[in-house]
Amino acid sequence: MSLNFPVIIKTLSFVTILVGVSMIPSALVSVFYAEYDVAILFFMIIVPVLSIGMAVSVRIRAKASRLRLREGYLAVALSWLLASLIGCLPYLTTGTIDGFINAFFEAVSGFTTTGASIVTDVEILPKGILFWRSFCQWLGGMGILVFAISILPALGIGGQNMAKAETPGISLSKMAPRMTDSAKILYIIYIIFTLAAVIFLKLGGLGFFDSVIAALGSMSSGGLSNYNEGISHFNSGYVEFIAAFFTVLACINFTLYYNIIQGKWKQFFSNSELRTFLIILAVGGLFIAANLWLTGSYDSIGESLRHGLFQSTAFITTTGHFSANYNLWPAFSKAMLLLLMLIGASSASTGGGIKVIRIIALFKLIHKGIYMRLHPSAVVPVKIQGKIISSETVSGITSFLSLYAFVFVLSVLVLSLENLDFLTTFSTVAATLNNVGPGMEIAGPGGSFAMFSGFSKIYFCFLMLMGRLELFTIALLFTPSFWNPDR
Amino acid sequence: MSLNFPVIIKTLSFVTILVGVSMIPSALVSVFYAEYDVAILFFMIIVPVLSIGMAVSVRIRAKASRLRLREGYLAVALSWLLASLIGCLPYLTTGTIDGFINAFFEAVSGFTTTGASIVTDVEILPKGILFWRSFCQWLGGMGILVFAISILPALGIGGQNMAKAETPGISLSKMAPRMTDSAKILYIIYIIFTLAAVIFLKLGGLGFFDSVIAALGSMSSGGLSNYNEGISHFNSGYVEFIAAFFTVLACINFTLYYNIIQGKWKQFFSNSELRTFLIILAVGGLFIAANLWLTGSYDSIGESLRHGLFQSTAFITTTGHFSANYNLWPAFSKAMLLLLMLIGASSASTGGGIKVIRIIALFKLIHKGIYMRLHPSAVVPVKIQGKIISSETVSGITSFLSLYAFVFVLSVLVLSLENLDFLTTFSTVAATLNNVGPGMEIAGPGGSFAMFSGFSKIYFCFLMLMGRLELFTIALLFTPSFWNPDR
Repeated sequence: MSLNFPVIIKTLSFVTILVGVSMIPSALVSVFYAEYDVAILFFMIIVPVLSIGMAVSVRIRAKASRLRLREGYLAVALSWLLASLIGCLPYLTTGTIDGFINAFFEAVSGFTTTGASIVTDVEILPKGILFWRSFCQWLGGMGILVFAISILPALGIGGQNMAKAETPGISLSKMAPRMTDSAKILYIIYIIFTLAAVIFLKLGGLGFFDSVIAALGSMSSGGLSNYNEGISHFNSGYVEFIAAFFTVLACINFTLYYNIIQGKWKQFFSNSELRTFLIILAVGGLFIAANLWLTGSYDSIGESLRHGLFQSTAFITTTGHFSANYNLWPAFSKAMLLLLMLIGASSASTGGGIKVIRIIALFKLIHKGIYMRLHPSAVVPVKIQGKIISSETVSGITSFLSLYAFVFVLSVLVLSLENLDFLTTFSTVAATLNNVGPGMEIAGPGGSFAMFSGFSKIYFCFLMLMGRLELFTIALLFTPSFWNPDR
Repeated sequence: MSLNFPVIIKTLSFVTILVGVSMIPSALVSVFYAEYDVAILFFMIIVPVLSIGMAVSVRIRAKASRLRLREGYLAVALSWLLASLIGCLPYLTTGTIDGFINAFFEAVSGFTTTGASIVTDVEILPKGILFWRSFCQWLGGMGILVFAISILPALGIGGQNMAKAETPGISLSKMAPRMTDSAKILYIIYIIFTLAAVIFLKLGGLGFFDSVIAALGSMSSGGLSNYNEGISHFNSGYVEFIAAFFTVLACINFTLYYNIIQGKWKQFFSNSELRTFLIILAVGGLFIAANLWLTGSYDSIGESLRHGLFQSTAFITTTGHFSANYNLWPAFSKAMLLLLMLIGASSASTGGGIKVIRIIALFKLIHKGIYMRLHPSAVVPVKIQGKIISSETVSGITSFLSLYAFVFVLSVLVLSLENLDFLTTFSTVAATLNNVGPGMEIAGPGGSFAMFSGFSKIYFCFLMLMGRLELFTIALLFTPSFWNPDR
């Protein structure tokens, strides 16, 4: 069956309108800070974007409003691509970022909640542009919650709900009622958490604008800042704690918050992904703190704990905040940070990476392998939280991990053409594929991706989108069978 | 059921005798080169080792000669450990290597066909010791063929034959008749190949001793040399070609040579693992050659091809030979070499690494993942060479890959405590776990592992044994259920 393009275009027109509307707050920020030229440039984008979006939306008559499987994948991939293409316009028209590739990189980095930046000095950027950069991330975080909670299960991508969804395809009409009751609550939680973060940061003595930017960066697990020194600019343990606290909240499976709303705290805390996530975070942080303390990187145990735990949180949540120049840390701490990057956050959260649930599955596979070798005739199902995981779901996870390994290795090869040191290459692949943001060495804290070639920047965009959309959404588009399913 | 220790001890007494007898050629080499003090020291080890081995062998009455599953694993792991413990004695008594840990490292490196060395200047070593180093590798190569062709299928470790073995356990009496007919032919092939390598190297103008050492290093895929500069010492394209040719022969699944003996050349060349192995080798080598040529690393295309293809062969076969100082090569070439290290050689060969058959399975899993996401209701078996692979075998492979990833990541963390650069840490883990030998940077070509701490050296020994014995053989011993299977 050929693809139903009208329904895809209809979806994209909706995205166009959404991005256009989303620029209005940035324009207002520009007005508020008397950056009238920037505000005008914003409106010069908003008006045509909204016009085109609405015109297309009205004109296109989708024969069926039902998105089938392949159309769902294509629509999701194109939505992120289109959002980034429109999202980079403010950077270009204001001249704050030179060249299309750079502007596109910054927009993709935003909408994928990566937080890698091409800008070498963010402090000279107008407030409206700074807000837009951060708002893109926040929208991306919202978008990924929609994707993970409503779309992914419908597409049957394993590792999210650990259960195969019943729905054979997505229907726009079907999504609407679902959003009104269950999913909508989650987006409200996302908004409430963001507002709470702003308030708590403000209470820490930060200016309102600084609070908003830090809150948007934390809740989206994007981590973009309005200061070159990032969170470390404030040099405040309180600010770091609040930022870390809200990134952790943003990186818990959002569907778990239902349990809390229903008063089921026990169920919330007994969730194996949540527990494992917190244990890895704590153990990783304490190991780093011990390493920092024992190598004399910091004078006190307190400072070692502060930076060790903060940086661990920033990396496992794939936020990419930094409270210190971890480039100067000993090799063990850096290796641990790299590992936390790869593990990533919980499924159905704003965080990226492999996701804790898949790491749990990986250990279950090792356990199964050991058991099978001792009891060759036994039939051993994989269980998580006492429930047997279907072999299709296990297969979905192993194929994800296989594809992840392949993409990672291929990307290290591709980016080694830049002829940089191995840690820079390895860490930038990890930082983009896992939507972390900053890497290490040259691309480390406060560094930017500006020195990479245009080709590499485009490749990084590809990796950011790939990672954000759980690999297969993008990978599928490169297979002949996607375009010729009947062959 | 408790372990039948007498039968394990009986097996180990056999290994003791074998290692003792294997020292005789080295003693004779010492006599031949008039190193009488070394020869005497060799015999001072051989006599007690043989005596103890025989005494134990005669005394121990194994009630059942049948090795069950757990006893099989334990016997294999302890055999390699015991061989290394005895094998390090000549280094200690001759004082050629200082300290037990260093000598043990060198012995483990030999018996696991790794070829990593603790010795900073090999050219001052006595001929008898040089021969013993290289002969350990060759014995290890022979041992691994026994392990892979006779023992592993019986233990049911997937990825070797891609078919579950029928035999529930190993019986020493059962192995004997099998070795006399089928497997024995393979060891004869190994010996014939080695002799052929000696002759061809000799024809290239090498001295007899040099030819023997290079042949033992090539056929075992160990790569130890009697020169600090390794193969590059000879600076001969012919020698490099011969060495590379025989390492490739050693890294083809030895059971495939049956096909050739039976005249079935077509079946030989249509084997998917062999084809994929050769394709990866050629593509990797050509990419490196192109990178070397385009970056001006060598003056001519010829030299770029020579070093690119030789080094690719040396790494994918996990031999670790070197024709050039690849530390000076551009980042892409180094990344490609690292990748070839990880992939490794064919199953049931002397080569190490993940093995090509598992890489094929990894791609089949990705393919299955893509297909499943487009056809969620389809049931898709994994096929290799048109044959459906049982879900147990697939599970065996995925659990191997999971354990491999876990061990690799853990080892990078452990070895980063040395606080060396990331490439050295990463590459030494790859070089030991995949039984390659030399790593990169400080542990690169001509470098040694001497600068590592005692703890790290022991850890490297663990990795070499782990990699050589297909991970699970060692990993099982660390699980409580191995020791308490009834619990």
